[in-house]
Amino acid sequence: MADHVKIATVAALVLIATSWTPVSAQSLADLKPAPEPLVLQQQGSFFVGGRKMTNPRTGWSELSPDLFGSPQGDVMVDQMYVQFQKPANAGNHVPVVFVHGCCLSAKTWETTPDGRMGWYEYFTRKGYPTYLAEQSGRARSGFNTVGFNEVRDGLKPPSTQPLVLMATAQFAWPIFRFGPKFGEAWPDQQFPMDKVDELYKQVIPDLILTQTPDLLAQFSDPRTSVPTVDTMAQLAEDLGGAVLVGHSQSSGFPTKAVLKGRPGIRGIIQLETGCYGNLDAEQVAALAKVPILVVVGDHFSTPQPPPECVKEMEAVNKAGGDMTFIALPDLGMKGNSHMFMQDRNNLQVADVLIKWIEEHVERRKN
Amino acid sequence: MADHVKIATVAALVLIATSWTPVSAQSLADLKPAPEPLVLQQQGSFFVGGRKMTNPRTGWSELSPDLFGSPQGDVMVDQMYVQFQKPANAGNHVPVVFVHGCCLSAKTWETTPDGRMGWYEYFTRKGYPTYLAEQSGRARSGFNTVGFNEVRDGLKPPSTQPLVLMATAQFAWPIFRFGPKFGEAWPDQQFPMDKVDELYKQVIPDLILTQTPDLLAQFSDPRTSVPTVDTMAQLAEDLGGAVLVGHSQSSGFPTKAVLKGRPGIRGIIQLETGCYGNLDAEQVAALAKVPILVVVGDHFSTPQPPPECVKEMEAVNKAGGDMTFIALPDLGMKGNSHMFMQDRNNLQVADVLIKWIEEHVERRKN
Repeated sequence: MADHVKIATVAALVLIATSWTPVSAQSLADLKPAPEPLVLQQQGSFFVGGRKMTNPRTGWSELSPDLFGSPQGDVMVDQMYVQFQKPANAGNHVPVVFVHGCCLSAKTWETTPDGRMGWYEYFTRKGYPTYLAEQSGRARSGFNTVGFNEVRDGLKPPSTQPLVLMATAQFAWPIFRFGPKFGEAWPDQQFPMDKVDELYKQVIPDLILTQTPDLLAQFSDPRTSVPTVDTMAQLAEDLGGAVLVGHSQSSGFPTKAVLKGRPGIRGIIQLETGCYGNLDAEQVAALAKVPILVVVGDHFSTPQPPPECVKEMEAVNKAGGDMTFIALPDLGMKGNSHMFMQDRNNLQVADVLIKWIEEHVERRKN
Repeated sequence: MADHVKIATVAALVLIATSWTPVSAQSLADLKPAPEPLVLQQQGSFFVGGRKMTNPRTGWSELSPDLFGSPQGDVMVDQMYVQFQKPANAGNHVPVVFVHGCCLSAKTWETTPDGRMGWYEYFTRKGYPTYLAEQSGRARSGFNTVGFNEVRDGLKPPSTQPLVLMATAQFAWPIFRFGPKFGEAWPDQQFPMDKVDELYKQVIPDLILTQTPDLLAQFSDPRTSVPTVDTMAQLAEDLGGAVLVGHSQSSGFPTKAVLKGRPGIRGIIQLETGCYGNLDAEQVAALAKVPILVVVGDHFSTPQPPPECVKEMEAVNKAGGDMTFIALPDLGMKGNSHMFMQDRNNLQVADVLIKWIEEHVERRKN
């Protein structure tokens, strides 16, 4: 694989890393009070999608044949959990849907590791109906357990069991861009490094290999898919139109949904890559119909924009589209990490997205 | 095991089941508007607890030796995710912490399967600072993946891998008490059976067997423990006092925390069992210092209260304690299921808890 693809792939796959400080357990005490009350018109949660299947080995009968009967039964898989809140002052703002990256949950967008306001509350306070979706196969969306107990009970070869991916501190140091080497942060690092343990607590097992045989192809080939691509798109359609925001692992999901012909996607925001450099004319024409914003942070060791973003942007904009690439340092924001929704200047970064939504989505004429 | 213990154990372990209707995907459309704006003083999320460990096989290097280096690295396990909201009208109400049961997440307390207000919003509207905790090892709290990839890669015998528990529709019909037999609901059933598929989407893999070798002992022996017992207790202490609410699998957790000498637990609410019949004098004395409420629904095939609740209540109250057992039918509420926080009369049931908190916790003299 070419070096730039390799770097982009790793950057898109990854998370996490930094100096390993003691667990402070000060997270509750760290919470900052809100500036003024948050007035909600509505709050709640629901699921999108999901399909029924028979799970052949649910674990209970092996646990106690005396208490539990059949080892099999019907379950739901591939559903996507969504939490939302609508501010009382929503006006006519477009709904915004946030989907987290690899090995993380919707916690990504909530209170930061050092107790400041996250994007979930901030976008709501700015008047946007705000939706946090949890990737199908992660956290409250559950995952498909077929194959695990079968291996455990000797019914299938161990090699058939999907790998359970777990991001570690050391794993991603260079890609997460906390500093030049593990344990050393950039002097201008915007991530709250003194509370990095609180970020590590957000890191949870990633079961995406139960959904796709080739994770790496997901990052280079826009025709590949996982259930979240469809459930994100379904949510946009159900909402009567929405801006879809993906980060890292999910940064390319909204583009994939558009290329599948899904309606209702009024804007695409790709945080930290998500570009595809080799699109055919039909794909380019489809993407030219939806405003696209790519935002990346600081301290990349490679030139920005990445080659695949340059290629996609040139093709889409030549076809009459509206694709924008923003490297935060070009706006004067220095030191942002891969997790800039949690960096010290996270609300300043949010304002970049909000300005783009207003100008490129809400004032769009068509 | 004695029949009543067996029934209580199954009732405490279980969830889910009912007639298997088509997936409607109408969950967003089903959302009911709120009666009036919800005004929050503060909202957010954080973690309690967590410990660092080295994960020997995180899956990445097997996925691509070319891209990723060492198979091992440092991760966090046993942390507990908590979301919360404080109403602007909180006054002096005691914080209330809700912990879900087996195979479910904190979604349990949010919007009901048919789109009505859940207890999270209702308790907040009633003036309580309200906290939803996700059991360590579930959903946003992650789980300890050690052992899975080792088996997959042939480094450990398959039989060493923890069972992944998955509740099915058929599994729990009689215990979940939707009706007399699978596919048939009680005529007075309070659960919104037309939206039961939305409940099935809440059911996610339960990894508690990564935390304890003997799940069944957890229900009969109050000295057993899992990490959530300590993280719940820590949250109560960090909050400067809280009422802890457990349901089903977690119904006995607050009692276990008190028996471990944990401070800050101002009240225990056990939804659907959580009693221990064989307590020694020291344990009884400890429990006599904390008000305890047990609430169960309808359609049990066995007499209520269960024998272990009768024994615990008699012992605790004789020692000067304040333990109350409420079977909802005795208050005139008929047809409530195991998931009465989602039943059609869920807010009426919530009022039973709120009245008890006011009378037994907030007006308590000591």
